Amino acid sequence: MLGAACTLRTASLCRQSGLALLSSRHHHIFRATASKASGSHPASTVSSRRTAVQVAAMASSAPAAAPPAAPAVDPKLARMREAMTAADGGKGVAAFIVPSEDTHMSEYPPDCDARRAYISGFDGSAGTVVVCENEALLWTDGRYFLQAETQLGPGWRLQRHGTNNCPEVHDWLSETLAAGQRVGIDPAVHTIEAAEKLRQRLAAAGIQLVTLDTNLVDAVWGAERPPPPEGPLRVHSLEWAGRSVSDKLADLRQQMAEAGAGALLVTMLDEVAWLFNLRGGDVSYNPVFLSYGVVTPDSATLYVDSRKVTPEVAAHLSEAGVAVKEYGQLLGDVRCMAVEGTRMWMDPSKVSFAIKQAALAAAAGTATATAGTRKRARGKNGSAGVGGGSDADEPAAQAPKPPSVILEKSSPVTFAKSVKNPAELAGLREAHLRDGVALTQFFCWLEKTIAGGRVLTEVEIDEELTARRAAQQGFVEPSFPTIAGAGPNGAIIHYRAQPGTCKSVDASTLLLLDSGGQYDCGTTDITRTMHFGQPTEHQKACFTAVLQGHIQLDSAVWPEGTPGCAIDVLARTPLWALGLNYRHGTGHGVGAALNVHEGPQSISSRFWNTQPLLENMVCSNEPGYYEDGAFGIRVENLFIIKEAGTAFRFGGQSFYTCDRITMCPLQKKMMAKELMSQKEIDWVDGYHRQVWEALAPRLESQAEELEWLRNATAPL
Amino acid sequence: MLGAACTLRTASLCRQSGLALLSSRHHHIFRATASKASGSHPASTVSSRRTAVQVAAMASSAPAAAPPAAPAVDPKLARMREAMTAADGGKGVAAFIVPSEDTHMSEYPPDCDARRAYISGFDGSAGTVVVCENEALLWTDGRYFLQAETQLGPGWRLQRHGTNNCPEVHDWLSETLAAGQRVGIDPAVHTIEAAEKLRQRLAAAGIQLVTLDTNLVDAVWGAERPPPPEGPLRVHSLEWAGRSVSDKLADLRQQMAEAGAGALLVTMLDEVAWLFNLRGGDVSYNPVFLSYGVVTPDSATLYVDSRKVTPEVAAHLSEAGVAVKEYGQLLGDVRCMAVEGTRMWMDPSKVSFAIKQAALAAAAGTATATAGTRKRARGKNGSAGVGGGSDADEPAAQAPKPPSVILEKSSPVTFAKSVKNPAELAGLREAHLRDGVALTQFFCWLEKTIAGGRVLTEVEIDEELTARRAAQQGFVEPSFPTIAGAGPNGAIIHYRAQPGTCKSVDASTLLLLDSGGQYDCGTTDITRTMHFGQPTEHQKACFTAVLQGHIQLDSAVWPEGTPGCAIDVLARTPLWALGLNYRHGTGHGVGAALNVHEGPQSISSRFWNTQPLLENMVCSNEPGYYEDGAFGIRVENLFIIKEAGTAFRFGGQSFYTCDRITMCPLQKKMMAKELMSQKEIDWVDGYHRQVWEALAPRLESQAEELEWLRNATAPL
Repeated sequence: MLGAACTLRTASLCRQSGLALLSSRHHHIFRATASKASGSHPASTVSSRRTAVQVAAMASSAPAAAPPAAPAVDPKLARMREAMTAADGGKGVAAFIVPSEDTHMSEYPPDCDARRAYISGFDGSAGTVVVCENEALLWTDGRYFLQAETQLGPGWRLQRHGTNNCPEVHDWLSETLAAGQRVGIDPAVHTIEAAEKLRQRLAAAGIQLVTLDTNLVDAVWGAERPPPPEGPLRVHSLEWAGRSVSDKLADLRQQMAEAGAGALLVTMLDEVAWLFNLRGGDVSYNPVFLSYGVVTPDSATLYVDSRKVTPEVAAHLSEAGVAVKEYGQLLGDVRCMAVEGTRMWMDPSKVSFAIKQAALAAAAGTATATAGTRKRARGKNGSAGVGGGSDADEPAAQAPKPPSVILEKSSPVTFAKSVKNPAELAGLREAHLRDGVALTQFFCWLEKTIAGGRVLTEVEIDEELTARRAAQQGFVEPSFPTIAGAGPNGAIIHYRAQPGTCKSVDASTLLLLDSGGQYDCGTTDITRTMHFGQPTEHQKACFTAVLQGHIQLDSAVWPEGTPGCAIDVLARTPLWALGLNYRHGTGHGVGAALNVHEGPQSISSRFWNTQPLLENMVCSNEPGYYEDGAFGIRVENLFIIKEAGTAFRFGGQSFYTCDRITMCPLQKKMMAKELMSQKEIDWVDGYHRQVWEALAPRLESQAEELEWLRNATAPL
Repeated sequence: MLGAACTLRTASLCRQSGLALLSSRHHHIFRATASKASGSHPASTVSSRRTAVQVAAMASSAPAAAPPAAPAVDPKLARMREAMTAADGGKGVAAFIVPSEDTHMSEYPPDCDARRAYISGFDGSAGTVVVCENEALLWTDGRYFLQAETQLGPGWRLQRHGTNNCPEVHDWLSETLAAGQRVGIDPAVHTIEAAEKLRQRLAAAGIQLVTLDTNLVDAVWGAERPPPPEGPLRVHSLEWAGRSVSDKLADLRQQMAEAGAGALLVTMLDEVAWLFNLRGGDVSYNPVFLSYGVVTPDSATLYVDSRKVTPEVAAHLSEAGVAVKEYGQLLGDVRCMAVEGTRMWMDPSKVSFAIKQAALAAAAGTATATAGTRKRARGKNGSAGVGGGSDADEPAAQAPKPPSVILEKSSPVTFAKSVKNPAELAGLREAHLRDGVALTQFFCWLEKTIAGGRVLTEVEIDEELTARRAAQQGFVEPSFPTIAGAGPNGAIIHYRAQPGTCKSVDASTLLLLDSGGQYDCGTTDITRTMHFGQPTEHQKACFTAVLQGHIQLDSAVWPEGTPGCAIDVLARTPLWALGLNYRHGTGHGVGAALNVHEGPQSISSRFWNTQPLLENMVCSNEPGYYEDGAFGIRVENLFIIKEAGTAFRFGGQSFYTCDRITMCPLQKKMMAKELMSQKEIDWVDGYHRQVWEALAPRLESQAEELEWLRNATAPL
């Protein structure tokens, strides 16, 4: 599944952008639309929405012929503006910003925290809302222009981010508001880094950033807001976790000692899950749960809804010396630690500004804390309705030097999680073998079914594939919504088929199928592109160029210290030679039985991400090509980074290469052999031999599937 | 000639480094040691120096066996510390920083401005000096550790930049000095960007940055300091410049109007030379002259020593409506413009902090200007001895918002200069044809001379090559000091052969020869590596990998918007596959009859340089491999960026490729044909056919050379 979106052009735009600023934590801005989120809302709140499929259908059939009806103001916007006027004890704010993120800066927030989608009606994965007295704007990027135009209700204006003359959020605010006006944010859904940059940029125009102690969207949402998820936790077994919670804590405590930190705040949901060897079900596809973790030299605490803690989980935590507290207790404990002078390690690109503010205010003492901050400090008092606020820069202004209670530094868990241990690697390999068996069974069935004359829908394909995976040992759920794009739908990069509107698949179809599974032992993510009849020469030429890029990256060797952005180009040059390209990154990190997208590494043109590709990190390799209105092509395998065993080691450095773990044939029919070098043909044959050897032993009792695999993996 | 130095590892280190900070304007930190600079100093001031060759010789023959004599304090350091104590009207500074740069941030400063080399004795191209009461330190990078160890006198300490535990300059100062102490700089030799970052970082440790109104090194240097250069100017003919000064001024004025600037300050020497279609002789190899330019909507002024203005140059300037003022008048005029409220466009990465300070102080009015700044404002009064100083942040503190008299924005000249016009391109092509003829004559002579049994020295090779170039029409001077590295000397990347110590070249030698010429019509830069007997299989394998990288970059096609850092890897993967690499960038921009190194583009792992590679920019393509103590290999051609003519144009974008302009055979003897693909063999044959067709018509009357060329360019 795609994990990085920027083209070279938009990459450089994003870099300095307010949109990126507001979601700067995200390494991966491409994702399928999470349809569950909209499905669970009361109908009354989603009246202005259409699905991506409906949008696509409208685009081809009804190109904006009739003028829209006279716009009436969205009732949600009217309520929002009332809340803005009343905000901060009646002082009011002239604008309020709603980013995509939740308190944990999740790529996929739970339904109850999908505030931007609720207030705007736009449910794409990337977007920032600004509501002013006379304007309501949504910034989103080129992938979502059509969808946003359709989903935004009356009174809304789309800001086409990345196009010429589209200002950044902070620039728009600076130009639109007058000096002295106030912009409100909920500091709980902005990172420290993002909020401080925003404050600085607005201040340059004389505009004040005000951090409110409630989220104004929640006031509008009211009783309609979905309740927080309540799925139970489960223990992620040591067999696949590889290191016990105690060992992980010991590692972190050593790093804390070296950094001079008295506490470590873990706020990203996948980091908490990884640290405590737990998994949950609060967010579809991502086996995480709403929680925080705090580690000190002599304690570790998991902040989570205690109803989710089963007896088995309680025993597991107790064994590792981990205390459980209610989810809502974190801020109070942060304040206590600040008062005690504990130096708290916070990753400024991950921890919310609200946490930093709470710590600073508590450290500065109640005498100097602002009214709004004190209100929050008392806990539940400040939680309902339109509450007070505080100047975002007041605590900093009161304390001229950064107070010693905060250590801003990258999270040590990010790094420990991304470099897999041997058990995690073994689990990932095992998951890919199970996945390979399911995929073999599925593709064998699919080819024969279509060859037999049956016409399938994209949704049926998704269901059958998921059923095959579900029959595998340890299957939990898909790792993201399956992207089954037939013909032109394959060119919609974040496509999600929907019953009733999806396309059919038959012997004339070129199908792009991007899917993955969450297993007890690991996470998979694979894309195959196949034709069920006779592909055109052009389709074959394009597929071959994509495959050549995939092979070039898979075959690459690079010295230690090389970041992913340095080798992204290897997946592109065969396409570039034809004047073709793809508008997304080439590779993203993958969790071990965790989120299918994880950082810090990225193989893309995000040149500001200079995280080296390290041994035992896991990445996807997924170049593609998308011809609008015609077809989409993508070839995706996952790989583990391993030592390359080169003839020399210049400068005593290690050299790394790709150890691919996805085991599934590539459709030979799509390859234009006459365009391939012998080295590339050898690569395909070698990969197919590896796939055969890996999967055949698991398919011994299934003659039909075994025969299909034998043919599919025979040399070119 | 190499133009970018960072390995991947040092690249990321440099990015955040104080060393890079202090020379952040430099795109190219690799250069040959400018021996002329040391040659022209009085002997007494260079007693502690040895040349790079002597250093290399010492390294191999006398590996630091005898302990050095008991260190006495360098008398220059003693005088320096006296000046530090007396500085700023007796308030003194605890440390003084001496970067490599002059007032124009030149890569090659004139002798009179080589202050860091004078004070430290270290004459490598990159380095920053910090002198404190008890310490004198030099920061330099891995290319220069050996040279610096030898050249630094008693009382000096080397800071090995880029190695573990080596602090950045500002970090070292922050850790070493106490809060409240003062660090002095001469703001005339630090860019706005560098000085403001330094001020900010020191302020975080409570240390004050003080800008002095004289350079303390000059006080130490005294009468021994060389006088400023006095070479006459010459007109760069319109035939090769392509656009008249009037036209260039009209373009700039349009950009100034769009940017809302009332004046444009041009401070880089090559930008002044380009803008006014003039060339000079103040710095060896770079045809520039000490000067500034100021453009306003209705005037243009060249600030230059009027003795350099010949009648022809005066007429040329007068025709374009350019006034001439004395070099020293710039600051006064900047103050006048500031007082008048003229908004001055300054590139913060190029213009000195002294100029910004002068403008701000003048704008703020004499009432609020500091004593030191006022002293400077009176012109010559503040120029001698140890003068007053001012807090670097005082003007900013007085004016809370950036005053409107300064517009900080990238120089429009940089861009106009780097994208060549048709006449400049034609001139560059013509220069390379002349160069190709000279090189053919030279290589024909060289091979036959050595085959005849004669043993040549590296210096003789340099002299003969320069003589062949000098015989060509329009030759001015070499474009940089020739790098003729025989055997192990080829592995010293910034090697310069010296009479008396250089190596000999015979039938057993692998020779790396990097050289170039300044012609009236253009600038050349070429590296060839050749063996005069039988190379080893290992040498051939390494050469072939370097050549394969060169071919891969030369054959690349990329979409518009792609920066050089994205395609640097293409020149490296064949080496990486063997576990080999090179510790420098792959390509630099080249001026049109101007500096051999120019920005803003760079093909290297400097990921923070995201300047796209644009049509009609000129770049070098020069991968290499260096085996310490054994040999060096580099293959370098220059190319023009041109439209690729791809089959498709994805997203309506243009795709670009390389149009090589260097015309000189590659030694076929060095190529391991069995390791090359048919495509690579075809590339070599195609290039050689192109070289033959380009040069043969110019060699018709020279039978021996023509025959040599015919053999050298025959198919593999």
